[in-house]
Amino acid sequence: MTRRRSAALLLVAWAGLVPAAAQTPQAPAQPPAPAASAPDFARLEAEQSAANGKAGPRAVPGRRIPVPGTVSPEFQAAIAAPYRAPAWNANPGSAAEWKALVAKLAAQTAAPLPALRERLGVVSTPETIGGVKAWVIAPREVPARNRNRLLVHIHGGGYVYNPGEAGTLEAVLMAAFGGFTVVSFDYRMPPDAPFPAAMDDAMAVWRAVLRLQRPENMAVFGTSTGGAMTLALMLRARQEGLPLPAAIAPGTPWADLTETGDSYKANEWLDNVLVSYEGYLTHAAKLYAGTHDLKDPQLSPIYGDLRGLPPTILTTGTRDLFLSNTVRTHRKLRQAGVEASLQVFEGMSHAQYLFNADAPETREVFAEIAAFFDKHLGTDKDPGTDKPSGAEAATR
Amino acid sequence: MTRRRSAALLLVAWAGLVPAAAQTPQAPAQPPAPAASAPDFARLEAEQSAANGKAGPRAVPGRRIPVPGTVSPEFQAAIAAPYRAPAWNANPGSAAEWKALVAKLAAQTAAPLPALRERLGVVSTPETIGGVKAWVIAPREVPARNRNRLLVHIHGGGYVYNPGEAGTLEAVLMAAFGGFTVVSFDYRMPPDAPFPAAMDDAMAVWRAVLRLQRPENMAVFGTSTGGAMTLALMLRARQEGLPLPAAIAPGTPWADLTETGDSYKANEWLDNVLVSYEGYLTHAAKLYAGTHDLKDPQLSPIYGDLRGLPPTILTTGTRDLFLSNTVRTHRKLRQAGVEASLQVFEGMSHAQYLFNADAPETREVFAEIAAFFDKHLGTDKDPGTDKPSGAEAATR
Repeated sequence: MTRRRSAALLLVAWAGLVPAAAQTPQAPAQPPAPAASAPDFARLEAEQSAANGKAGPRAVPGRRIPVPGTVSPEFQAAIAAPYRAPAWNANPGSAAEWKALVAKLAAQTAAPLPALRERLGVVSTPETIGGVKAWVIAPREVPARNRNRLLVHIHGGGYVYNPGEAGTLEAVLMAAFGGFTVVSFDYRMPPDAPFPAAMDDAMAVWRAVLRLQRPENMAVFGTSTGGAMTLALMLRARQEGLPLPAAIAPGTPWADLTETGDSYKANEWLDNVLVSYEGYLTHAAKLYAGTHDLKDPQLSPIYGDLRGLPPTILTTGTRDLFLSNTVRTHRKLRQAGVEASLQVFEGMSHAQYLFNADAPETREVFAEIAAFFDKHLGTDKDPGTDKPSGAEAATR
Repeated sequence: MTRRRSAALLLVAWAGLVPAAAQTPQAPAQPPAPAASAPDFARLEAEQSAANGKAGPRAVPGRRIPVPGTVSPEFQAAIAAPYRAPAWNANPGSAAEWKALVAKLAAQTAAPLPALRERLGVVSTPETIGGVKAWVIAPREVPARNRNRLLVHIHGGGYVYNPGEAGTLEAVLMAAFGGFTVVSFDYRMPPDAPFPAAMDDAMAVWRAVLRLQRPENMAVFGTSTGGAMTLALMLRARQEGLPLPAAIAPGTPWADLTETGDSYKANEWLDNVLVSYEGYLTHAAKLYAGTHDLKDPQLSPIYGDLRGLPPTILTTGTRDLFLSNTVRTHRKLRQAGVEASLQVFEGMSHAQYLFNADAPETREVFAEIAAFFDKHLGTDKDPGTDKPSGAEAATR
């Protein structure tokens, strides 16, 4: 099997986040086709100047935006891919239809995971942690400096996608590229279990892992909904008097459920993963939040008091519909005096670093987060006790 | 004079970077007007799905993007402002016409500077440093910990705009908000003096300030062209065996003169400062670079070997035409093992943090850069010598 075929076969579907076309072997994107009728600059210059002659909303013309040559061939293919159907604009008419769609996409996402784990040298062990169904995911050989460290992973999927093992993809990538032991858990979701069930489960897991490992040796991370839940978990743990981890990594967090933020509009139709907030996100937000105030920091942590949060590394991309969520969270953290690091990847749409384990950009994202965790997490066992290490305890 | 009127009067024009309308008192942006014929989501969903049904360039529809409510009223006004005419699409037909335009815009930019300095408590003293015309700009009272520190500022303006005192605006803001002594200099520019005259002048200044202050106590910063020159100066100083400063702050650097980078297209017509690369930038690049290879790292430092560069803080905005320049530079620095920090501001177009000294975002940008410098710069006089401090020597 050639290197190219091997890489292509390992393209991973996350909650149906990858359209079927992207899961088949695919050559790097072709040079962009010219627009059907390429408008000349002078005409656009005149039209646009007239349309933007007064203060107000920004008028932008319809256009075709090329696949950038500034990213890897693997990432060019991801950027060139069609909109992620049917996930981006799913709008099932009933709870039963939601569940059927979610189950179908989850099965597609979970199917390639055993092969991925095998190839990346990662082992997944089902557990129950804090009463919540979970997996302990670790490299076959945990590096010595990570033996007393434990990460908690909160999966994404708009509070509706990625039940079961489908939610563990990001934990597999982190275990593989960071060399960490990771607990990933299957929180309850709507339509059956709306807010605050997911956060209740997250709290139960956090409470439980605090009995397994020192908080100084732990971090929490997750993408999209998992990024928002990571932030909300910090607020709730603080409120309930529990210790916080040494670091967190919210990836492109859904930090604002009120559809507030410039990139919700500026990157609409450009992001090929989420595409538009008017797709499934408005429906998912309603399913999850019901009649709760969307500005409740447990739903939209951007509105919370972020002072005292652990050192935070945030990840997003220039085409991400959640670019504003991410940079607003970064600024709010900095304003609150929190050590916060931001990484923004060229041309990347929402959470696209989860789609292809072989893209250099994917490895770079996780290497940066792992380095950040390595800098902030302790390595020692609890001094003076015989408390076992996270890896040992969690897999016992 | 009311607070609002005072703030409005202090809107600053930088190289004609602010359209005339934005320089008059202006209320915060109105709520966005609805599009003339608001397309309904179902129609867009169908049209866009069809237009993006195959791998390739991304088709985006024409639309009106609201002024975000997630920024300060001052910044809402900046985002709502019309395209920056005549600077963005200047295309004079001769060297004489270029010089006339540049002189006119520079006069507009320089005019409000004395009042701005006065209000911000900053003093500017003309000097000649390394044979280059310069200004030493400092707060009336330099804080004790900055007395042995010196910053070098390289102004922006596409290698054509901001000759003379017009180039000192950013230095005034840094002196005011960071409490530093800053040397800002008037490098030669085309049409009279194309590449490498500007870099020759930057090197002459760097060589000269090394006789005034310890490199451990110095930083170099600048925006746009000044950001690119900051990076190129590091490469050239290293090559010529000179020490590097303790930190640098390239703001939204024109790091790639080859028109390569996703946001050159993705943020085209959205950025109301640069608007389009096909505006004046292509002409300015040609005026400056002539027939030199645009991939020469002295012209496009993104193609240079960035290993060993000093700790770097980069600043950009989500609507910035140079968003890709900035995030690509950040990633390249990180890949080269350099400590590099990225800040991205909500809704901000190119270099828009220079336009209104009273916008909270402006102060936040400079406060972050100042904190980064404070973390990395030494404070002591050269031990064992009677070398005077930068502030003392430069203003002597």
